[in-house]
Amino acid sequence: MSRSLNLAVIPGDGIGTEVVTEGLKVLDAVLAGTDVKVGTTTYDLGAKRWHATGETLPDSVLEELRGHDAILLGAVGDPNVPSGVLERGLLLKLRFELDHYVNLRPSRLFPGVETPLANPGEVDFVVVREGTEGPYVGNGGALRVGTPHEIANEVSVNTAFGVERVVRDAFARAQARPRKKLTYVHKHNVLVHAGHLWRRTVERVGQEYPDVTVDYLHVDAATIFFVTDPGRFDVIVTDNLFGDILTDLAAAITGGIGLAASGNVNPDRTAPSMFEPVHGSAPDIAGQGIADPTATVLSVSLLLDHVGLPEQAARIVDAVAADLGERGTAKRRTAEIGDALAARVTA
Amino acid sequence: MSRSLNLAVIPGDGIGTEVVTEGLKVLDAVLAGTDVKVGTTTYDLGAKRWHATGETLPDSVLEELRGHDAILLGAVGDPNVPSGVLERGLLLKLRFELDHYVNLRPSRLFPGVETPLANPGEVDFVVVREGTEGPYVGNGGALRVGTPHEIANEVSVNTAFGVERVVRDAFARAQARPRKKLTYVHKHNVLVHAGHLWRRTVERVGQEYPDVTVDYLHVDAATIFFVTDPGRFDVIVTDNLFGDILTDLAAAITGGIGLAASGNVNPDRTAPSMFEPVHGSAPDIAGQGIADPTATVLSVSLLLDHVGLPEQAARIVDAVAADLGERGTAKRRTAEIGDALAARVTA
Ligand SMILES: CC(C)[C@H](C(=O)O)[C@@H](O)C(=O)O
Ligand SMILES: CC(C)[C@H](C(=O)O)[C@@H](O)C(=O)O
Repeated sequence: MSRSLNLAVIPGDGIGTEVVTEGLKVLDAVLAGTDVKVGTTTYDLGAKRWHATGETLPDSVLEELRGHDAILLGAVGDPNVPSGVLERGLLLKLRFELDHYVNLRPSRLFPGVETPLANPGEVDFVVVREGTEGPYVGNGGALRVGTPHEIANEVSVNTAFGVERVVRDAFARAQARPRKKLTYVHKHNVLVHAGHLWRRTVERVGQEYPDVTVDYLHVDAATIFFVTDPGRFDVIVTDNLFGDILTDLAAAITGGIGLAASGNVNPDRTAPSMFEPVHGSAPDIAGQGIADPTATVLSVSLLLDHVGLPEQAARIVDAVAADLGERGTAKRRTAEIGDALAARVTA
Repeated sequence: MSRSLNLAVIPGDGIGTEVVTEGLKVLDAVLAGTDVKVGTTTYDLGAKRWHATGETLPDSVLEELRGHDAILLGAVGDPNVPSGVLERGLLLKLRFELDHYVNLRPSRLFPGVETPLANPGEVDFVVVREGTEGPYVGNGGALRVGTPHEIANEVSVNTAFGVERVVRDAFARAQARPRKKLTYVHKHNVLVHAGHLWRRTVERVGQEYPDVTVDYLHVDAATIFFVTDPGRFDVIVTDNLFGDILTDLAAAITGGIGLAASGNVNPDRTAPSMFEPVHGSAPDIAGQGIADPTATVLSVSLLLDHVGLPEQAARIVDAVAADLGERGTAKRRTAEIGDALAARVTA
């Protein structure tokens, strides 16, 4: 008897393909000797495909992706694709179509990792970024484009349904962690309608989690604490755009986006979740075999956790922690880091 | 013969009144011996007035404010005013009514000042934050509030007129600085309509400033550089909400909001500009005489520059730089810092 893990893999462009190779290497290694067999189907999506065919995400591919247990994505894009084409047509389309309403981004400062902060303290928090609403809905438009009378609007759409489900997920995550602390971040003194919906939702759902401590920060003030006292955070829940901004800052203070993993999670499992490093395709270093695959490997750990293999997920995090602790300043190549992590998870 | 500087002063609540006293002290000192006579009218606006009368900004007061050369504001608010009341009803109302389309926020790491960054390098940039458009316009609404079917929208409104005038101001400021560098920050890969209006505007106006170097950063990436390489920034121009977020982060890396000054500037001078520290009313330390008035004093410097007294403005910055350089760790009281700065500007 064996179980099968049916993965869709989207290596993408630039360093995306390089880091995904290492992610799969570590995945194979950590599952070796278990009863889980990994099957992968690779999908050619991203800048190369768009240049060749004009397609971003054909309906037929989207349907095929739905048939998988999870998706692993490297990174997409190159400087010759106009801004927004792949973001709206592929990345965000996947998040919206597959209802990835929990965009999960853990930030942990592993021992031995360089940070720009002088006194970071212990940093170990997770941002639960809403993934299917807010200013990301694509609900904007423009009039009289290119004239002196142009007007361009962007609408942030927020629903009780959408806010409640992500807030509920964040409370559950906070309750499962030792510190049981939830910080929600918005700007309800200015964005009063959306902000008050968030506030009322947190207050109401919070009554079901009396053991979780809740506090609130305006998004601007939150950035201050990210650099002056990041240790205060445990679980953060926030809107799609605020989460985008805060998680890049979170990555920066915990060693850079080369280490930042993310999961685009559909907690209801009505469609596969997607796991990807926070970084992009980095055309400047692509093809040289020098990209750090750690963020992808950590994304594989999130993937394993999501598909019900928490022990293997934890082994990967431990391997990364150990590897980072001994990394020093020697530059290793992409494959060397992947090999080292693969060796550690099997050890 | 003498000139008169006719100031409206809104001390506000909490530490607002304390820091404004010191700001005016330094103003008087720096103008002593010049032909400029300062006249002030104090306006009682903020939380106390709202509690007493329910008023935030009566029309008659707004009309009186219009008659002044400039406005100095301390800080408003207390924990018993519902979120949004004073922000929308007073602070933002002033910015919108008086057409403060340039929200000017300089960030400089003065020698001797503590920063959370391990290796900040030289930091000296200014953020030109748009002040009258974007997600701040108050163009939102909600349906079925308090039900499971609630929907809350917030509309970011951006116009060619509004974007062009602030971009033009930012280019002019960049050109006047030694490095002549302008970074514009947006999220045009997601907020495609507003973002592309910003992009086209920067490209077009930039042709009139061939000696200014321009680069672009997505707002999420910008936060990374704020902590890894803040020295790369010279002038930053951005949207109202992105500017709000980035300037708090900028304050954090250059010594905290106790030092961060701001000007809500109407460059066309169709109405008075308003100068205020970035910090709030800080109810936790109010009334103790321990608030740092430096941000307010630096805001007075911006005020002087705006009303055509650049020499006096520079004297204040020099005094602050000298004072910070010698401050050490001894805690001084609000009035002591004000006295020290007043003494330095007259020396
Ligand atoms: C590429 C872009 C659409 C994306 C986002 O804004 O969500 C990225 O910045 C991220 O954080 O995953
Ligand atoms: C108080 C609030 C309305 C204001 C803003 O969001 O602009 C503040 O954060 C600021 O930066 O001046």
